[in-house]
Amino acid sequence: MVKLEDIQNAYKRIEDFIHHTPVFTNSHINRLAGAEIYFKCENLQKTGSFKIRGASNAVFMLPETEAARGVITHSSGNHGAALALAARWRGIKAYVVMPRNAPEIKKKAARHYGAEIVFSEATLESREAVSQKLIDEKGLSLVHPYDNPNVIAGQGTVLLEFQRAVPDIEMVVVPAGGGGILSGTAVYAREALDNVRVFGAEPRLADDAYQSFKTGIRQPQRPPVTVADGLRTALSDRTFNIIRRYVEDILLMEDEEIISAMRMAWERMKLIIEPSSIAPLAAILKNKERFAGKKVGVIITGGNVDLDQLPWLETSSPG
Amino acid sequence: MVKLEDIQNAYKRIEDFIHHTPVFTNSHINRLAGAEIYFKCENLQKTGSFKIRGASNAVFMLPETEAARGVITHSSGNHGAALALAARWRGIKAYVVMPRNAPEIKKKAARHYGAEIVFSEATLESREAVSQKLIDEKGLSLVHPYDNPNVIAGQGTVLLEFQRAVPDIEMVVVPAGGGGILSGTAVYAREALDNVRVFGAEPRLADDAYQSFKTGIRQPQRPPVTVADGLRTALSDRTFNIIRRYVEDILLMEDEEIISAMRMAWERMKLIIEPSSIAPLAAILKNKERFAGKKVGVIITGGNVDLDQLPWLETSSPG
Repeated sequence: MVKLEDIQNAYKRIEDFIHHTPVFTNSHINRLAGAEIYFKCENLQKTGSFKIRGASNAVFMLPETEAARGVITHSSGNHGAALALAARWRGIKAYVVMPRNAPEIKKKAARHYGAEIVFSEATLESREAVSQKLIDEKGLSLVHPYDNPNVIAGQGTVLLEFQRAVPDIEMVVVPAGGGGILSGTAVYAREALDNVRVFGAEPRLADDAYQSFKTGIRQPQRPPVTVADGLRTALSDRTFNIIRRYVEDILLMEDEEIISAMRMAWERMKLIIEPSSIAPLAAILKNKERFAGKKVGVIITGGNVDLDQLPWLETSSPG
Repeated sequence: MVKLEDIQNAYKRIEDFIHHTPVFTNSHINRLAGAEIYFKCENLQKTGSFKIRGASNAVFMLPETEAARGVITHSSGNHGAALALAARWRGIKAYVVMPRNAPEIKKKAARHYGAEIVFSEATLESREAVSQKLIDEKGLSLVHPYDNPNVIAGQGTVLLEFQRAVPDIEMVVVPAGGGGILSGTAVYAREALDNVRVFGAEPRLADDAYQSFKTGIRQPQRPPVTVADGLRTALSDRTFNIIRRYVEDILLMEDEEIISAMRMAWERMKLIIEPSSIAPLAAILKNKERFAGKKVGVIITGGNVDLDQLPWLETSSPG
């Protein structure tokens, strides 16, 4: 179980490496929501998402001999780029396994931060097999994107920093994907802050966290089709056990509501926010009565978007 | 002529109304440019551009009886929205004259901030005639987007605030459109700051400031075709006289260089920046030798972009 001091120690480890991201408000959105919303902008974080916090905490905590052999992940999204940069900071090698047909933008990001990309077939089985082979051959350490207590502790540092900037926050809304940021946030809120309630926001088209939370039993993810590509992953036992106990509720929304909130945030806040990261705002606007008049913190988790494929454009072509 | 104390007084008038916008840096862009670039993010300013500074200073300076009759502009872009909000702050009426066929997004913005839109034909003659008729009928005060000393003084407050955040800045690069922000910046740099050199950045396809600067005689604008729609306007005698004396140089770039810098800034900085506002970054990347190793300030002037019409998408349809 991740504890408060794990998050506090993580922050000491990583705080000189990461950006202390700004917090923004927007009067138009506040009027619309009937609440005071504070946006913690981890889309402006190094590598474009909060994932660098968990990845760097996990990499920095590896014993010297293990670290020297290198690290690996088969998460091709934000965690892959984050692990690459964390490894570079420590001066060790990072491998990111991704399908041959992964989007160019993901390959580019992982390479940009210095990872070696290893290709697999598109199936999870192939990615795991290719990873395992490298782990066996080279003695690499697997850094899972969320099913890892050191990663969760790193993600919990977002709320630690957020609360320093906005001390009287009453509620926090966080996207629910694999549950790393949601469980890290929930631990910090429960153990360090009085009366701060934490909500998960999840697309209805990828509602495993909601179904697990409501039934009390971890449910598998449905075939993921949501536009919020970062939220297609399923909770692990570890994240579910924290979320089940410490999270106030999981709120669902339709993909159209995500797209509409995303466009509004781009237009009003002038910030590039990825679809997964706008689920909390969509949840607040859909459940105004639960947030009315409150000081609500929203963690904008990332800003990595394919600018050729914006979800409100019916047709778009590569530039 | 606008003086230092006009800018200082403008800041006292407006500082409690405007956002004190953040300054960001980006290590990738710094490596690429070989310079230390500081971005003052007026795209995060109220109304999405710096124009609120000049508009509110001009509106706040109107004598009571004149103000009570209302204000008018026939600039349909960022200044129109800014004048509308400034008028609302003062509790007076604002009229924005725009062609019937103006983009919906501009009508929406002006209305959002409380302006009354008055339609004209598409020609400048028609816009001026419609404005003049209203001025004659209602005794409105015309607030020109840049050919107005109080507007220029307001725009000069960007550098005042910027320099407080980054005291050791050595150069500043600003878009050159009608010359309001460029001349305001140049006055402040010359009169308040030692050795800070100011550059204008202008699209080659709308190069009246460059041609005027190089010949020493104010030149008309060519038929404007640049993607940087905010820079299609021409200098006035007033702004040219300041720019001619106080600006170090005007740098030109191609539209493709603007689009490529814009896309890079969106991807790397996660900020929505309009094409006109990225001309300074394009200018720096095109003239690296002039900025090498320097601390360079860039004023990101605005973030109002039609998200259905991104310049790197060959085809796009309304969402």
